[in-house]
Amino acid sequence: MIITLTTDFGAEDGYVGTMKGVMLGIAPEATLVDITHAIAPQDVRQAAYVLWTCLPYFPQDSVHLVVVDPGVGTSRRPIASQTAWGLLVGPDNGVFSYVWEAAPPHLTVVLAERRYQRQVVSSTFHGRDVFAPAAAHLAMGVPLKELGPVVDAPIRLPTPRLDIETDRVVGEILHVDRFGNAISSIGRLIWEGGILHLDPAFGDRSAHLLNARRFRVRVAGRDVGPVRHTYGEVPVGSPLALVGSEGMLEIAVNQRHGASVLDVHVGDMVELVAVG
Amino acid sequence: MIITLTTDFGAEDGYVGTMKGVMLGIAPEATLVDITHAIAPQDVRQAAYVLWTCLPYFPQDSVHLVVVDPGVGTSRRPIASQTAWGLLVGPDNGVFSYVWEAAPPHLTVVLAERRYQRQVVSSTFHGRDVFAPAAAHLAMGVPLKELGPVVDAPIRLPTPRLDIETDRVVGEILHVDRFGNAISSIGRLIWEGGILHLDPAFGDRSAHLLNARRFRVRVAGRDVGPVRHTYGEVPVGSPLALVGSEGMLEIAVNQRHGASVLDVHVGDMVELVAVG
Amino acid sequence: MIITLTTDFGAEDGYVGTMKGVMLGIAPEATLVDITHAIAPQDVRQAAYVLWTCLPYFPQDSVHLVVVDPGVGTSRRPIASQTAWGLLVGPDNGVFSYVWEAAPPHLTVVLAERRYQRQVVSSTFHGRDVFAPAAAHLAMGVPLKELGPVVDAPIRLPTPRLDIETDRVVGEILHVDRFGNAISSIGRLIWEGGILHLDPAFGDRSAHLLNARRFRVRVAGRDVGPVRHTYGEVPVGSPLALVGSEGMLEIAVNQRHGASVLDVHVGDMVELVAVG
Repeated sequence: MIITLTTDFGAEDGYVGTMKGVMLGIAPEATLVDITHAIAPQDVRQAAYVLWTCLPYFPQDSVHLVVVDPGVGTSRRPIASQTAWGLLVGPDNGVFSYVWEAAPPHLTVVLAERRYQRQVVSSTFHGRDVFAPAAAHLAMGVPLKELGPVVDAPIRLPTPRLDIETDRVVGEILHVDRFGNAISSIGRLIWEGGILHLDPAFGDRSAHLLNARRFRVRVAGRDVGPVRHTYGEVPVGSPLALVGSEGMLEIAVNQRHGASVLDVHVGDMVELVAVG
Repeated sequence: MIITLTTDFGAEDGYVGTMKGVMLGIAPEATLVDITHAIAPQDVRQAAYVLWTCLPYFPQDSVHLVVVDPGVGTSRRPIASQTAWGLLVGPDNGVFSYVWEAAPPHLTVVLAERRYQRQVVSSTFHGRDVFAPAAAHLAMGVPLKELGPVVDAPIRLPTPRLDIETDRVVGEILHVDRFGNAISSIGRLIWEGGILHLDPAFGDRSAHLLNARRFRVRVAGRDVGPVRHTYGEVPVGSPLALVGSEGMLEIAVNQRHGASVLDVHVGDMVELVAVG
Repeated sequence: MIITLTTDFGAEDGYVGTMKGVMLGIAPEATLVDITHAIAPQDVRQAAYVLWTCLPYFPQDSVHLVVVDPGVGTSRRPIASQTAWGLLVGPDNGVFSYVWEAAPPHLTVVLAERRYQRQVVSSTFHGRDVFAPAAAHLAMGVPLKELGPVVDAPIRLPTPRLDIETDRVVGEILHVDRFGNAISSIGRLIWEGGILHLDPAFGDRSAHLLNARRFRVRVAGRDVGPVRHTYGEVPVGSPLALVGSEGMLEIAVNQRHGASVLDVHVGDMVELVAVG
């Protein structure tokens, strides 16, 4: 059974190792897979985005443990949630919002049952004392509803901006990756015979599909040209827009750190303007 | 069988991968768990602290491989040590000191037996040639005493400062974590019905317990108030003291990198002063 | 079955996690081992060096997945190659060159067979859509030649400089590691009874062996003394040359980050001059 880990704990302390020790004590045969421990400290939205990109590629019976938890020690609830993308375990702070957009929760519970927690629960490290034990017990087959009572309305982040108008689509930058690619909320885009279709990844799924034959892209007030198929279509050092690996509109600079070169940040407005 | 790895090798070279290859060649079924490879280069004390926080959470038959080894190639001895917290493998430079405070060594040997080393032993990479093979052979069940002769007095770091006086306790900062929490040697502290008890984690275990009803905390000359239960008891951006996840007195700033904001460093004096 | 991963994806995104999900979906029993994900972005030569140092320490039936791929989306070919050091999977951009110097390819194929790729192949993330599925299918026992047609001349990087003259050897810095050790192309050096032998690791293997009794080392115009056995032979803070763990001539500074102190960089000339 796979248990993935996504945290903002970084690499330099022993917090991740401690959680793995706790889980292997409960579920010795579990396959532990690090997604990342380099979420910016307490950046719930970045974690929500990374989970949304990774989880569909794991077997559906995986358990996904997430500890990005600025509210640890307050009254925020620890939860677990069953979805078509696997079992999610983490704080009730919206970190699963983007996953739930694609894979709505079948059942979400509060991790209240004491016998699935460590004997002493600290006020500062629920990753070790509450979340890791819950993930390991779920991986061992404990039914979700034994972990605590049902949560009716877990907290959700605002749906990323995606305004589909007659002649343009407006979105926002969701994430800047290590290579400087700035990934937007405009998607999922699919090329079909030279025509670009848009099938919203977040929010209202019944939105009209775009099928204008030609587009230009603007980000933070700058025109970066039409939508390209690959980085190599522009010279080294030139900006471009293309459809990224998740089908979202990305802004990049060929063989450079695009977000730095273009001074683009999470939250910046992106426009896809039909000109054909 | 679990083998954990703790090194200062960082992520950018292939040294960790090489050690894993060596171990999986000897113990193909071992479960390898990274604790951290981001110990500051040659910082034996930081590694000693991280091991002390993590190892009690692993199954007791785990093997813990540690390579933070400024003396590689000198006459410092490679050792392995059996404790209630598992089998420890690494250099004889004090890196296991804090673990041994809690889990005294039952038996410690020098890794002298050539048949449990790689055929050619380099003078610069004992992690690959001496420590990784020893850890893997121990995980495969080779008895500790077959690896070499007994060591009587392995090297120990000084015990962290903890002076318990009538009306105050004086300690020092042991570690600053990724979130900027500055963790001190004052502990383990336990709240019991509004009263704070102190049960020394290091050094003389017969010290008097504190039970004054009220305390204030000073670090590097600054008063950071009473001991709190959670970060959320002070406004965002305000300093506080609280009992951390290992029971040690911590200095933090709510939702900020406290050590940077307060200019607090490893080794700084911390005082817990009874005022009740 | 072991699958190792070497990429320039860094730790902060979900790209590595996504590839692991894909592989565990195909090969649930695979042992996934991270070599590094901190190759400098698109630095094919650094990846080639790291692979050369690590791969010989893994079991020979391991699969080694490498994604350092500046040419993704262009016509560069995805390949897999069988060698005495295991099965290699990655882009045809020279990243396997140094491994092939030591372990020549028995058979190299283009990853063209659609049924061993994901159903939809993006133009930007072949790690997920082409390389990870190929590695997992190979780990499951699919014969290499079923993945696509044979490649006759995969791309190779230039062989690192190693000029062996009568009274000196000239090489270049290949890599600077986390500790600041600057590792050169001069090797493999072996001490035998006070005499230093040189057996080329790259290029023409029939080169003459050196056996002069005394040498001095120059790097970037600076004399760093004779070849030492260990760091401890010079005072803390002093430069030295020694034979590193792979048998290559290294330049270091005892207990300091040598490459920074000495201002030495990848590509700088290194000379080993016989004076005996």
